[in-house]
Amino acid sequence: MAEIHAVILAGGSGTRFWPASRRMRPKQLLGVGPDPNTSLLAATVRRLSPICSPERTWIATGEHLVAATREALPQLPPRAFLGEPVARNTAACIGWAAMTIHRQDPDAVVMVLPSDHHVGNEAEFLRVIAVALGSATNGPITTVGIRPTRPETGYGYLEVGAEVAAGVHRVTRFVEKPDAARAAAYLESGRYLWNSGMFFFRAATLLDAIAQHLPALAAGLREIDAAVGRDPDPTKTLREVFASLPSVSIDHGVMEHQSLLHVVPGAFDWSDLGSWESAWELGQKDAAGNVLVGRATVLDGHNNLVQDLRTDGRRRVVVAVGVQDLCIVDTEDALLILPRDRAQDVRLAVEHLRAGGDDDLL
Amino acid sequence: MAEIHAVILAGGSGTRFWPASRRMRPKQLLGVGPDPNTSLLAATVRRLSPICSPERTWIATGEHLVAATREALPQLPPRAFLGEPVARNTAACIGWAAMTIHRQDPDAVVMVLPSDHHVGNEAEFLRVIAVALGSATNGPITTVGIRPTRPETGYGYLEVGAEVAAGVHRVTRFVEKPDAARAAAYLESGRYLWNSGMFFFRAATLLDAIAQHLPALAAGLREIDAAVGRDPDPTKTLREVFASLPSVSIDHGVMEHQSLLHVVPGAFDWSDLGSWESAWELGQKDAAGNVLVGRATVLDGHNNLVQDLRTDGRRRVVVAVGVQDLCIVDTEDALLILPRDRAQDVRLAVEHLRAGGDDDLL
Repeated sequence: MAEIHAVILAGGSGTRFWPASRRMRPKQLLGVGPDPNTSLLAATVRRLSPICSPERTWIATGEHLVAATREALPQLPPRAFLGEPVARNTAACIGWAAMTIHRQDPDAVVMVLPSDHHVGNEAEFLRVIAVALGSATNGPITTVGIRPTRPETGYGYLEVGAEVAAGVHRVTRFVEKPDAARAAAYLESGRYLWNSGMFFFRAATLLDAIAQHLPALAAGLREIDAAVGRDPDPTKTLREVFASLPSVSIDHGVMEHQSLLHVVPGAFDWSDLGSWESAWELGQKDAAGNVLVGRATVLDGHNNLVQDLRTDGRRRVVVAVGVQDLCIVDTEDALLILPRDRAQDVRLAVEHLRAGGDDDLL
Repeated sequence: MAEIHAVILAGGSGTRFWPASRRMRPKQLLGVGPDPNTSLLAATVRRLSPICSPERTWIATGEHLVAATREALPQLPPRAFLGEPVARNTAACIGWAAMTIHRQDPDAVVMVLPSDHHVGNEAEFLRVIAVALGSATNGPITTVGIRPTRPETGYGYLEVGAEVAAGVHRVTRFVEKPDAARAAAYLESGRYLWNSGMFFFRAATLLDAIAQHLPALAAGLREIDAAVGRDPDPTKTLREVFASLPSVSIDHGVMEHQSLLHVVPGAFDWSDLGSWESAWELGQKDAAGNVLVGRATVLDGHNNLVQDLRTDGRRRVVVAVGVQDLCIVDTEDALLILPRDRAQDVRLAVEHLRAGGDDDLL
């Protein structure tokens, strides 16, 4: 039987959860959501542990993040960490991982999962994963789509076609983030699922698809593969070739061009944790709806997210009085305050600091 | 001619401007208002310097605050600082100062001024002070009342009677902080002034008034005076007697019982700087109405007070995005966030910390 490998996508630029997230400490290394003490990455690996051993778990990350990422996952062997010399989007990253796995196990079935999402119902999650792996083992590239529970405009969607096996459907098309009217129509139709960014395939199947749709990427990957088989230290080739690979997402570069894709609908709680707002939504709330982390207090105020994320051990209190619907995030060297409904605008703070030459705070 | 002495009242518990103000660093030691770099106390002494020399300037403060207060006023001689062993309200404090001055200068004319108020028009202020000193030199205890510019409910008022000399009126009565309807009526009548808390008198006149209205205080002050004339170190007597003095304000204990009081109406800009809200009102605003101190930035938000008051030299930024009408005050060991229109509720934060045993942060 084909072995199952997991590739966890753990790159990221660390801006949406600034000042908690930084270039050297992106979101997946933080405890965002219900459990502030476990990084999203560690939670992702733990969640997969019933079906994927550490020996077949791979972490695709940036070269500059390998050290921090290994620290978060001490149970994995060093070779599990694939550090991209330069970010070239998900097609290159997943292609490289698939090639690396295929080299040691030509029959491998691979699941690719983001490292920084929230999953609320793990039994249903594992059931769906198992169905998707079954589909991918004997068929085409398969994805998982989440049944929408609201007319969300922040996610991409998949249109679902005929059921081809128990719990497995054809994908009719990929849809970009819709406007509110379209999102409402998608929800009502029952024919659309949220695009979870999870993919399941035989390594060989994905490499074939890359060869078909992204020949330049396929050529680059072959060059890297040849160096790995030939050179005592293929790092130099990897570095040179990687920089030349086309930068395109796996969705745009491969999936949307595939004539046959399968999808397994899932009904587990799921969030891509796109902003501090989602951290509040999923966080543990007190009676007044406040999500408090660290030495933080809200008096006569409700529905705030207040995080004191200092780790320097210095005495300090954070006290908010009479405020509503704010995000307050305090770290050693930066403090951010913004309304929950403007959580996306953390980018304004990041852009301001970048423009002012304060990259060391990002 | 009688010499003019100034007594600056510089006690205070330091709660209204928490976390900037602390028990050991009350409001008058901070730069609240238009000039964040000069303490209110230093500004008060400087403002009086045209009419009162350092040799005749006295600072009434708590014993525990003498060191910090001397640091703020290095130009004054050590004997200028009257450190109360225990707080016994303004009647005891002013009585003690008047007695100390009277001992060295029986003809002295004394002006008593708060150390923590804002004065905007110094020429008019000095003109009014001069008129009040003239009234007090040859007549009864005199105060200064500020012409109201709005129906303020946060101040006490003085009702003004007949003019007895150029720019000098009789005080008809003291009025406690009024409700909104009453404050509007006071403003409209033109017969009411804000009680500025400034008093002008011959030292001998005040001591007579204390003897008449507060005989227990007068007896205690005589005991202290005797010890000063007799003992090489009268500290022990001072400490013992001070603790036994009645605790009452000069308004309630003396002024309201005086049959004859004069008042000089003044039209200078004045504020008692009662809360962070008044600090915002008087602070230097950027184009968006934000008052920013330290390394603080507001993006796409207006009318906020954001103060980064750290002095530890560590790298740090405070960034607020999309917020309105907030006070954000950051110090090394405490961060406060509250709406400007709830600035009085800083007391909730102080009470919370006190109840939790965090007195070291107060």
